[in-house]
This record gives sequence, C-alpha cells and structure tokens, in this order.
Amino acid sequence: MAPAQRTSGRSVTSKVVALLDAFTPTEPVLSLNELAAATGLTTSTAHRLANELVEWGGLERGENGGYRIGLRMWEIGALAPRGENLRAVALPVMQDLYEATQASVHLAVRDGTEAFYIEKIHGPRAPRVRSRRGGRLPLHATGVGKVLLAHAPPEVQAAVLADLPRITAYTVTQPGLLRRQLARAVRDGYATTTEEMSLGACSVAVPVRSGPRVVAALGIVVPSLRKDRPRLVAALQVSARGVGRRLGATG
Amino acid sequence: MAPAQRTSGRSVTSKVVALLDAFTPTEPVLSLNELAAATGLTTSTAHRLANELVEWGGLERGENGGYRIGLRMWEIGALAPRGENLRAVALPVMQDLYEATQASVHLAVRDGTEAFYIEKIHGPRAPRVRSRRGGRLPLHATGVGKVLLAHAPPEVQAAVLADLPRITAYTVTQPGLLRRQLARAVRDGYATTTEEMSLGACSVAVPVRSGPRVVAALGIVVPSLRKDRPRLVAALQVSARGVGRRLGATG
Repeated sequence: MAPAQRTSGRSVTSKVVALLDAFTPTEPVLSLNELAAATGLTTSTAHRLANELVEWGGLERGENGGYRIGLRMWEIGALAPRGENLRAVALPVMQDLYEATQASVHLAVRDGTEAFYIEKIHGPRAPRVRSRRGGRLPLHATGVGKVLLAHAPPEVQAAVLADLPRITAYTVTQPGLLRRQLARAVRDGYATTTEEMSLGACSVAVPVRSGPRVVAALGIVVPSLRKDRPRLVAALQVSARGVGRRLGATG
Repeated sequence: MAPAQRTSGRSVTSKVVALLDAFTPTEPVLSLNELAAATGLTTSTAHRLANELVEWGGLERGENGGYRIGLRMWEIGALAPRGENLRAVALPVMQDLYEATQASVHLAVRDGTEAFYIEKIHGPRAPRVRSRRGGRLPLHATGVGKVLLAHAPPEVQAAVLADLPRITAYTVTQPGLLRRQLARAVRDGYATTTEEMSLGACSVAVPVRSGPRVVAALGIVVPSLRKDRPRLVAALQVSARGVGRRLGATG
C-alpha cells in the first residue's frame, strides 16, 4: 500500500518534476513553504520528496535552510547533447560573427513547437529583441524559428501552421504564405523576418547541420536587411558550417 | 491502488533518479534495454518513467530512438548556484592564472565528504593528475580538498578524519597530523599536498570566499613546490579574491 503516492491523481514523477520546475532564474532558492505553494503539494509531501532529492544531490540546502538546485543536477544537465556541448562549440563562432557584424547573434534549437535559445550575444547597437538565453519563442515569427520549422517533421509543421498567433502587425499569420516562406528557406538555405516578432528588428538565419541533419539554427538580428542581406547570409553560412564541422568532431 | 510504485521497496523518486543517473559522459545515449539494465528496473517500468520524463523535457528521444538528457534538464541544472555561475565567474581568472604559472588550475567545491571539481585547466607541461571536471576526489589527499575540509563543519571533519584511505605512499593517513595541517591551512590561508594523491604532483590551494563564507577552493598542481610556493600562493590569493568579488557582484 502506498496511499500518498497517487494523491489527487498526480504521479510521483509529476510531483518530482514539479518540484524541480519550481526553481527559476529569478527564484533560485526556495523555502519549503514556497516549494509547496509553487507545486500545489502539501508541505509534508513537498518535504519528503525534496529530502529524497537532497539525499541524491539534485537539490541542496543553503545556509538559510532554503532549497536550491544541486551539483548532481548540474552534472546531469551538462550531458544534454543539444545543450552544453552545442553551446560550447558554437560560442567562439558566434563571437566571431558578432565582431564581424556588430549584430545580435542567436543560436536556437527546436523544442517541440517552439524555438529554444541555447545562446545569444546581444550587440550594444542592436535593436532590442525578446529572446533570451534559455528562453522560448514561437517558430513562425523568428528567423531561427522559421529555419527550424522549415526542417521539422510534417506533423510539427502542421501543428504550428494550425495556430499562428499575431505578435506584431507584421507577423505572418496566413498558413499559405508561411508555407511558401518555409519552402523558400529550404531552397535558398536561409530564412528572414521583418519586424514579425519585435518592431524595429529584422532577422536572417541559417541551419546548422551535423551530417545531413539540421540540429540548430544560427541567426542575427539587425535594424534592417535592405542592403546587408547577401553579406550577412554569407557570414552566417560560413559560421554555421564551422559549428557543424566542430559538432561532428566532438561526436 | 498503485502496485507498481513501490516494487521491491524502492520509492518512485529513487527510480526516477536512477534513470537520470544512468546517463554518463561516456554513455550519453541509452536504449530502453540499456536503461532497464543500468537501473535494475523492469523494461515496462523504465519505459513508463522514461516517457514521463520525455513528456516533461528532462529526457529526449534521439534519431535512433535512444534516450538522452533533454534541454529542460540542462536549463534546470544551469540554476545550480554552485555550478554554472561559479564556473563562469571563475573561468577567466583561472585562465589568467594558467597563463601566469603554466600549471594545472583546479576549482572545486565540497560535496559532502568529497571535493567536486567544477572546472580544471590542464597545463601541457603539468604533471598528470587524477582530477577531471565533474569528478570527485577525497578531501584529505588534494590541495583544494584540504582547504575545503579546513573550513568544513566539525561533523564533516570528524567523518573524514575517521577514515583516511592511503592513495600513495605519501597520503596523510594519521588524523592528528591532518588536523594540524588543517589548522595551519586556516591560519596561513593556504594548504599544500606533496605527492599525496598522484606521484610526481604537488599542489597548493586557497579558499574562495563569498563574503565571510568559503564557497570553493582554487588550486594549482606543479611538479614541485620547493622554490615557487610564495609566488604561487600570492598568485592564487589574488585570483581567489577576484573570483569572490565577482561572485558577490552576481549574487
């Protein structure tokens, strides 16, 4: 008998991940009461599960008794192939690209139906944009997102095209138009946006391939693409090739 | 009724963490059968729990159907205060220290009764040592470990001193001698080892403080300390102060 394990229909796994999800960049340390409040668990269940995670090393207790993410979690998270390895390989290339263009540089992977930003370098003279490292943005309204969507399986494309929320007045919300843009991105090897996510910001992005597979997208954000597009596409393509080659070399 | 949840006396939490623990730097992708074998779970339990983790994003399926650590795990792991933030702050300082000394440079925190290596820079002319990033070594036989042990709570010191395994012929295995070395480390602000972990390798290490608290240890490994000790201690102390100051600034 394990009566506490299915309280209110939630599996234990879902409670454990709810505990982990409670920690955020702005709330990296939580008291037991805060943990219970954030997860909807009773204090006693939160206490029991959190202590199991502390024993394992996934959580730690700080000086004030607060819980925080532990070293074991950092160790395991660093094993994500699309996380630390990709970031470490891409970062020097992104820095070169930033030096060469003075534009904001973004590296994203597809996470379900969203673009997940693995790294970004924000240029001081670049337009303000809404991406952040570790953040997610819609696939249909960003340059990196369009590249990732163009190379996504049909069922992902269908799910995204079924619902294209308007973010600015320029967001592409017609499925037919977006489909043509995706086909062009595959054909030309790059995708663009024009103020579709943030007013005053345009972007161009290219795929990063590991072997034949598109594993990420590399993009830059500038105030206008009018005259610089060929130069930016060339710089991006050289950079993306460099990342792909180094990904192949590190496995 | 939840008959599968306490099979063979293991809590569900322990099964979930066993699944995560199965992934290692040398085995970052695992099939379902490999997951079951590594955890001792039945294939059906491993399948059910792994799929719950996939749904959450903590695990992902790769092209060949293998499981791997997912982006959500990387995101959460990056929140560990003693992990990525400490590493990012310390790395440029460690690189300067490496340039100045051409010695291997180590940054470690205490994890229970062991030293956990957050980062290391290995010098090409430095002696071969057994530390690795993400690895653990005993507190009593390493320079960074002695510093961390010297500033650990009494119960941790007692637990470590109760069992001092011999690693080389020079490992300090007498509790009385180690106690005197720890007291000296607190008084002098640094600790040393002489071939106590690896033959041919000596080390010197200093504490990294965030405010009054010792949060990490910074050390270097050289073939001999005979003539360079004052210079190395001075370089380490300046560097450790730089890391501590920047830790304070980033919260």
